[in-house]
This record gives sequence, C-alpha cells and structure tokens, in this order.
Amino acid sequence: MTYRAPISDMLLSLNHGAGLKAALEAGHYGDFDADIAAAVLEEAGKFASDVLAPLNKVGDEHGIKLEDGKVTTAPGWPDAYKRWTEGGWNAVSGPEDFGGQGLPLAINAACTEIWSAANVAFGLCPLLTASAIEALDAHGSDELKTIYLEKLVSGEWTGTMQLTEPQAGSDVGALRTRAEKQADGTYRIKGTKIFITYGEHDMTDNIVHFVLARLPDAPAGTKGISLFLVPKFMVNADGSLGPRNDIYASGVEHKLGMHASPTCTMTMGDHGGAIGYLIGEENQGMRCMFTMMNQARLGVGLEGVGVADRAYQQALSYAQERRQGRAVGKKGDGSDAIFVHPDVKRMLMRMRAQTAAARTICYATAVAIDVSTRAKDPKVRAEAAARAALLTPMAKAYSTDIGNEVAYLGVQVHGGMGFIEETGAAQHYRDARITAIYEGTNGIQAIDLVTRKLAANGGASVWALLDELSATVKQVEASNDPAFGTTGTKLREALEALTRTSKWLLERVASAPNDALAGATPYLQQFGATLGGCLLASEALAAKAEGLGDAPRYVALARFFAENIAVQAGALERTVTESAESVAAADAALLGS
Amino acid sequence: MTYRAPISDMLLSLNHGAGLKAALEAGHYGDFDADIAAAVLEEAGKFASDVLAPLNKVGDEHGIKLEDGKVTTAPGWPDAYKRWTEGGWNAVSGPEDFGGQGLPLAINAACTEIWSAANVAFGLCPLLTASAIEALDAHGSDELKTIYLEKLVSGEWTGTMQLTEPQAGSDVGALRTRAEKQADGTYRIKGTKIFITYGEHDMTDNIVHFVLARLPDAPAGTKGISLFLVPKFMVNADGSLGPRNDIYASGVEHKLGMHASPTCTMTMGDHGGAIGYLIGEENQGMRCMFTMMNQARLGVGLEGVGVADRAYQQALSYAQERRQGRAVGKKGDGSDAIFVHPDVKRMLMRMRAQTAAARTICYATAVAIDVSTRAKDPKVRAEAAARAALLTPMAKAYSTDIGNEVAYLGVQVHGGMGFIEETGAAQHYRDARITAIYEGTNGIQAIDLVTRKLAANGGASVWALLDELSATVKQVEASNDPAFGTTGTKLREALEALTRTSKWLLERVASAPNDALAGATPYLQQFGATLGGCLLASEALAAKAEGLGDAPRYVALARFFAENIAVQAGALERTVTESAESVAAADAALLGS
Repeated sequence: MTYRAPISDMLLSLNHGAGLKAALEAGHYGDFDADIAAAVLEEAGKFASDVLAPLNKVGDEHGIKLEDGKVTTAPGWPDAYKRWTEGGWNAVSGPEDFGGQGLPLAINAACTEIWSAANVAFGLCPLLTASAIEALDAHGSDELKTIYLEKLVSGEWTGTMQLTEPQAGSDVGALRTRAEKQADGTYRIKGTKIFITYGEHDMTDNIVHFVLARLPDAPAGTKGISLFLVPKFMVNADGSLGPRNDIYASGVEHKLGMHASPTCTMTMGDHGGAIGYLIGEENQGMRCMFTMMNQARLGVGLEGVGVADRAYQQALSYAQERRQGRAVGKKGDGSDAIFVHPDVKRMLMRMRAQTAAARTICYATAVAIDVSTRAKDPKVRAEAAARAALLTPMAKAYSTDIGNEVAYLGVQVHGGMGFIEETGAAQHYRDARITAIYEGTNGIQAIDLVTRKLAANGGASVWALLDELSATVKQVEASNDPAFGTTGTKLREALEALTRTSKWLLERVASAPNDALAGATPYLQQFGATLGGCLLASEALAAKAEGLGDAPRYVALARFFAENIAVQAGALERTVTESAESVAAADAALLGS
Repeated sequence: MTYRAPISDMLLSLNHGAGLKAALEAGHYGDFDADIAAAVLEEAGKFASDVLAPLNKVGDEHGIKLEDGKVTTAPGWPDAYKRWTEGGWNAVSGPEDFGGQGLPLAINAACTEIWSAANVAFGLCPLLTASAIEALDAHGSDELKTIYLEKLVSGEWTGTMQLTEPQAGSDVGALRTRAEKQADGTYRIKGTKIFITYGEHDMTDNIVHFVLARLPDAPAGTKGISLFLVPKFMVNADGSLGPRNDIYASGVEHKLGMHASPTCTMTMGDHGGAIGYLIGEENQGMRCMFTMMNQARLGVGLEGVGVADRAYQQALSYAQERRQGRAVGKKGDGSDAIFVHPDVKRMLMRMRAQTAAARTICYATAVAIDVSTRAKDPKVRAEAAARAALLTPMAKAYSTDIGNEVAYLGVQVHGGMGFIEETGAAQHYRDARITAIYEGTNGIQAIDLVTRKLAANGGASVWALLDELSATVKQVEASNDPAFGTTGTKLREALEALTRTSKWLLERVASAPNDALAGATPYLQQFGATLGGCLLASEALAAKAEGLGDAPRYVALARFFAENIAVQAGALERTVTESAESVAAADAALLGS
C-alpha cells in the first residue's frame, strides 16, 4: 500500500504541540502564516505519494551497485531525484540569497517526515545536503558560497558529511585523515573515510563532500580537526565542471536496511590527494561540524517519525483487512477483522500514540531552532536556542527508539506475513534500525542530554520546559473532561518524577559522573515519555478549544499515551536514581574482574 | 566469532532456578543425576561450537533454493545434519522404546538453547521433528509408531507441522484442507498449506508431514479438524521407501531472517491427493496438535534464549575489543574499550540479565513438564502439569520478546558496524524476529495466560507459584547481603503488584472479557519481569549457599534485574488495571468511528 501524509495530524502537532502558532502570533516568522504551511504540506504529501513512495520497495530490492568507482542507484531513482529538484523540494528552507525559499525549518521538518515516510533511503540524501548547506552558509568563505551554495540549495549537486574512519566513530577526535596546505591556499587531503552516505551516486553531476581532516601540526583529539569542502569534480570559474578530484568510492556496505542508500568507503590520495578548501578556520572543524550535526540529528529523528508513521499506516490497513477469529461475544461462522481484538488495538494505539508524540517533539525542536534564529529579541533567541539544544537529543533518540519500536509492532500486527519480505513491514523494521545509531548513537544522545543540556545552565532549560508542561497538565485537570480518564493524574506524577530525577542527576553530573552516565538512557526515555505525554495533551486541549470534529480522537490518543506510556516515568525514575551501583557491577558480573 | 555454551550459567539455572535439583532429590528422575546433565551439556556445547555455529552465517548468506519441487539447503548443511543424527543429538529426550535416550526434557531444553544459539535456523528442524514425535507417540496407532517413530527419533527422517493456510493463521479453525476416507482406511488429502518449516529439504531421504485437515462431514471450526500423518515417500512393509506421495513444495518464502530454513508452501492434490493416515480420532486433531504445540512453544522460547545469548556473547566480545573514547577521569592520548562506558555496561547487563531470566523460565517449564510425566504421585503430577501450563506462554512470549530486545541491543553495542551484515549482529536481529510470531504470536500467548492459565482454576496455579517466589524474596531479605542492594524490596513490590493485578484480571475474565484481554500483553510482561527477577534471585542465593566462586556475579545479575527490570512491575500493573478504556477507545481514535 502507499503512504498518505497525515496532514491534519501534522498541522495540529505543528501549530499547537510544537508551538508554531504561538511563534507566528509573536511575530517571529514575519509574514509566513499557517495557511502557507498547510498548502506546502499538502503538496509535499502528493509528491511523496506519487513519486517517492512507489520507489521505496524498488530501492530496497535493487539496492545499489558499485562498479569502477561509480555507483548506480535503483531504477527510477535518478529520475525521481530530478523531479525532486525541479519541484523545488530541495530548497524549501534553504537560504533565500542562494535560491532557497527560506521557509521555516519547522515546515521543512514536517516535509522531512513526509519524505522519510514515503522513502527513507531517498530522503536521506537531501538531509545530508541540507546539513552541508548549513555548514557552508554559516562558516564558508564568500567565494565558496558563490560557487557551491546555489547548486546545493537547488539540489543540482548533493552534499556529504565525512567524519567516520575505522578507528573513529563516536570518538571523532581519533580521526587520522591528513590535510596539507598548498602554496595556492588549497589543501591536499589523504585518507580513508567509511560509512559515507551517498558518497557516490548517479543522481547528480557533482557531489560536494565535507570532510574532517587533521593538519600536520594539529593538536590531538577534537581540537585538531579542520573541515574541508572537497568537490567530486573541480569547478571552473564559469561554474562548469573541471577535472575529477582524487576522492573515490572504493567500497560500499552490505547493510541490514536502507539498501537504496549507498554507504561508501571513500578513498582520498591514490592520485596525489584530493583538493580541498578550508571551511571556517583551521582546527575549528568540530565547531563547524556541530552546526551540521544538530540539524542532521533532528533530521534523523524525523526519519524515525516517518518510518513509524509508514509502518503504522500499513499495520492499520492490514488490521482492517485481515480476518481471523471473532470479537468477544460474537458467535457463529465467519470471522472479524483482527482490529477487533483488544491486543491488536493496543498495538495500534501504541504505534499511533508514540508516533504522534515523537512527531511533536521533533517539530517543537524545529520551531525552537526557528525562533532562535528569527526572533528579534536577543533574550527570546537565547531562550529558544537553549530549548532547541535541550530538545535535540530527545528529538533524535526518543523518535528513533520509537521508529524501531513501532516498526517492530508493525511486523507483529502482520503476524507471519510480517516476516515475509514481500509484505513490506520488514523493510520498515530493517530501515529503522540505523536511525538509532547514526548521527550519534542514542546512547551518545542520552549522555549529551545529561552532561550538556541538563547540566549546562544548572538545569534552567529543563525547569523552564517543565513549567510549561505543568501548565498544560493544569489545563487537563481543569478541563474535567471524563474522556481524558486519568490523563491529568498520570502526567502530573510523571512530571514530578522527572523533576526529582533531573535534580538527582544534576547533583551528580560533576560529583559522581559515572552514576549520572549510568542513568542517561533511562533518563532520556523518562523525559521523552513525560514530554510526549504533555505535548499530546496540549494538542488534545487545542483540538477541543478549536472545536475540531476530530478532537475526541486526539483526547483518546493523549489518554492512551498518559495511561500506558507516561505511566512508566516512575519506574524509570527509580532506574535512574537507584540502579547506578548495579550498572557499575558490570565489571564483576560480566568480566569476572 | 563463534559461540561457547555458558555451561556453568546453564547448570545453575537448571539445578536451582528451574528446580531440577529438587526434582532429582524428590526422586522424579529415577537414576538420572546432575553429573550426567553436566556431561551432556558439555558435549552439546562442543558439537554446537564445532559443527553448527560455523554454518550459521553460511546458511544466512546462501539461504535455500527451490527447483522442480526440490529444496537445496546451504553448503555443509546436509553433512552437518548427518553428523547431528550420528551424534545421537536428535534422540536426546526421545522415547527409549523407539531408540531415544529418554533423557529429561529439561536436558533437551538446555540442548535446544545451545542449538539455537549456535544456529537457530538449523535447530528449528529437529524442534519440529520433536513435536511430531510427541504427537505420534501420544496419539498414533501402534502400526504407525512401528513404521515411523524410530526413524523420527533418530532423525533419519524429519517431521513437519502443517496447520497454517492463507485464511487460517492464528485462527486454525478456519482451515479448509480436505481429507476423504478411502476404502483401505487411509485418507486422501487435498489442499494448500503455507509457512511450512522444513516442508521440503535435502538433508534426509524422507519427511513425515503432520497435516491438519477437515473431513467432508466435519463440524465447523476447531471441532472439525483431524490430524494426519502424510509421508513424503510412502513406506513399504520392509521399511524401504515406496512411491512419492502427492505432497509437494510449490513455493518458498523470501524472509526477513532464518534464511537457511526453508519455509514452504505445500500443495496436496495435484495428482489425486496425498495419502494420509489418521492420528488419534477423527475430529480430535486439535487435541493432538496441542500436544505438539506446547513443547514447540517451549522450543521457540528457547530459540529466543539461544539467539539472545549468542547476541550477548558477540556484543560483549566487541565491547571489550572496540576502543572509542576514554573512561571518566582518564586523560591523555589513547582510548579505552567501550566496555568502560556506563551506557554500554547498562546495555550488556540488560542483555545478560534478561537472557538469564528467560533461560530459567524456559528450563523451569521443562522441569515442570518432566515432573508432570515422571512423578509417581498423581497429585504431584497434576500440580506440575498445572505449573507447566502456566509457565508455557511465558516461556514462549517473554523469552522471545527478550530474544528480540537483546538482539536489538546487540546491534546497538556494535554501533555503525551493527548495521553492516558482515558483522553478524544483524543476522541475530533478523532471525529473532519470527520467534515472537510463530507457534502462536506473543499476543496469543498473553491471551492464553490470562484466559486459560490464570483463570483455569480460579488462579490457584498463580497463587501457588507466587507463594514460592515470595519464599525466595524472604530469603533475599533475610540474607542481609549488601551486594543485593534493594533486590528484596524491589522484588517484594513486584510480587505484590503482580498479586493485585492477577486478582483484578481474574475478576474480569468472565465479566468484562475485553478489559481482561486489553491487559493481556502488559500482564505477561509484568509476570515475566517478576518471575524472572525472583528466579535469578533464587539462583544467586543458591550460588552463595553452595559457595560458588562465581556467586558475586550471580548476585550482581539478580540485583541488576530487580532494580532495572522488575521495577517496571508497578507501572505495568497500572497499565493493566487502569488503561482498558484507553484501549477500547481505539475505534474512535484510529478509525474515527
């Protein structure tokens, strides 16, 4: 079955849960308005259903081929990419000075979910290009921008991010690729990068690589890393393509999922070294890379949301078609759709509620980033920047945890058919798996949340957010709507547990760092479950306030989340605050030392 | 890396957590003793490491081929199967009258874990043969037993279980395959079965199919199903093979995992119908099939344990080799094994603790089945049968949930390498996925637990088990060993929560069945987490009592489980008892009706 973008869910999430409406009303978005948002999402949904979704399975089955250093993508992919750029989809939130439409990142976030749901392996390519655009726009010289930025924004050329080396994964500082300055101001780069997404492909004439490398006299670790722009083909002064640069795909990975996305080993230096141009200053590469990584992390979170929604739609459809057994109380011949069985309902409700929560966490991150760059008041910008920083690890990790869980349940709803590749449920399950790993594993995100985001300003970002969530819970309690069930109570308890847990961690980040680190992952889960529950509740309240006909279904979703997922917050508090010793015992328990 | 059977863990689990030692001391096992158990497991471990484990990846990569109705298995597989039968491994717990060794099922359960860990797709074949043996032994005529049983016990021939049809999956009663009685007393069977594991292969000369079919005048639903033995080749009076029977593999599935195990569509009737022999009585097929299914369910649970342990061993090894970053407090150049990071320790501890808990739940089920057939006192047998019935759905569902979770974490520990197929972690993740589905989905198991096992005797089986677990918790509390941390408290709370939840469900199974069914899956999770925690604690106590040098590591594992996993029991109680309405709201929330 195909994919249909859930536009009304997305708009409710964007406008209310994520705060776009409030930001619009505060004037942060200039003359952009909610009607434009709706129109863009409608069109994006059509393009995704018509062009991208039908290629998802084709891509999975065909994969890609590497021959003589050239990668061939699956049938139909180059043409789809052409239509993608022609439709202006690559340029949605690109800088207007370089041909972009300058739409809010929040809109692009919703679009990213749509591309990921339709075809996550396809959507990954522009996701990396977007990061490249951002780094170049923020840190590149005017000359480099003039040559490269417009073509990256339009999508005529794509971008890559090249950090990883065999010995340098999560530990980026361990990279060894070398860059030597030449008399003409360029650099010669030699080394090998692995796991380079779309490092080589046949969808565009040129590829612009962003490569982290080390100068000969650079300090050790992350302080000695510089960022270089390394084009696949050199670019002449008139913009035409010049000679081939010395950066080649020397291998591609055989992966669990994302078969259509080429994951390349890139070799530089077999022919004297690749020519690269410094981005930003020498030894400041990590700073530039972090610019790229934050948005890339949000993008990967949105991949989790997208794959989850696709898996949910497919499972719901199957559950309505597949007939097995009878509903309780029904007798006689015949059978009912499996949707009637409470256990199947539970799975589907969990899938949809988790997906909706992750969606809003991601969109809220995007709105915060928007406000951090668009608001006029520096204080508002700073607060939004802190909010974005706090939300980013959750947008990435919670959403991709959910992408995996929902894809798992999607297979389960299909029963035996779920294990058969032709059904398609298994592809979502395989594709989703990498999202919890790349752009910083979810463990790294959890550590970032505890050590940098929670601890950065004595917890101020967290307290500010919890105050807002608490206000939402008060509204739920005040609504006295029996359809909310025990939503208010459950969320209140979750918030109190999260407050206590945050304080406990804050007290230990510096004094007992291993204890804090041991609690990082359950803390992120606890935070996500509490935040997600409150955001869904705020959307349900908004739907009621606006008199939406669908308000009861949003109330039901919020209630399900509160009573089944947010309710775990208390247990997770205990895991964080009472189990550090049990984790530290791993040396004795697992190694016998 | 290869697999090494964790013999000392297995023996502690078997003897203490699972209660083999007590059953031996009570005389239920005759002259079998614990030394024989240890010797068998040692040998099984060697065979698994030497012969089966090296073929696991080969099987995954080569898969199987179907040409002209014949299935070719992966290179080395027929030879390994030959060595398997020659080593007597097929006959471990087979009936002695037909060449079996008659060892306890508990020993075979441990062996099944070993085979599954080494090569789950291989181990699946004898698992189904074992079920066939059981059904034939329990319900077959003496004539059929004489012809078929010895060769099934030795493994010279393999068996299949044929229930599923396109419209009849979980709803077995919907099957349509027809059987008509012939003048000679045999039956002619026509129909199509799907998802038939090892329905066709090249490892043995003959295959003995056990097929569910419907007689022309049979009542509708499950009451009109009969079980037939349908050989691939007819068997002459002298035991030699006769003509080919009319049952053919007409297709094989392209699956997410278990690539080496042929999953066949079986067609009967293209040449007049397959000749079948009735097992048991007409229309009593479901009764016979349940005999097969209970052990098959335990077997699948052990697949979950096996794959989990394999994934754990591989992840632990990687975590000790792979160097990234520094331990907290370490400065300067160089990097540490990722094992030093608390978040990695948490993942590995969770993997091992969950695996150990699932193992003991499965072994305890096997011991209960043994006692239910071996004890002299009918009361002891009946109590053991009730215990086995209660534990079976948990052995199946909890262990396979864990198999999937642990394989997921195994990929995560590997980071980006986990997503690369060559690493092998992804194979475990793919292979594990089916275990939560086949032999009754885990949702079906949860429903069985609530509606049949809990409710069967007014909860008596549950109360008896909880009393035993409570005694264990008392011992933990009395031990005053600080290494247990808060294990006693956490398990006590979990037990109390489980007691309340069980009562709540019991009150509703009849009066509000949809509410009870909505809570089935979280109840099974809650029960598993509580039971697993108590069983690990009992093993830790036993290890201390026996003065094992490894006692501290078992205490640490039990503590980790209690403080991180059993601690969820309270939240799961609330999910069961307070969220039925939120599940029922699925109609409105998901379908808008």
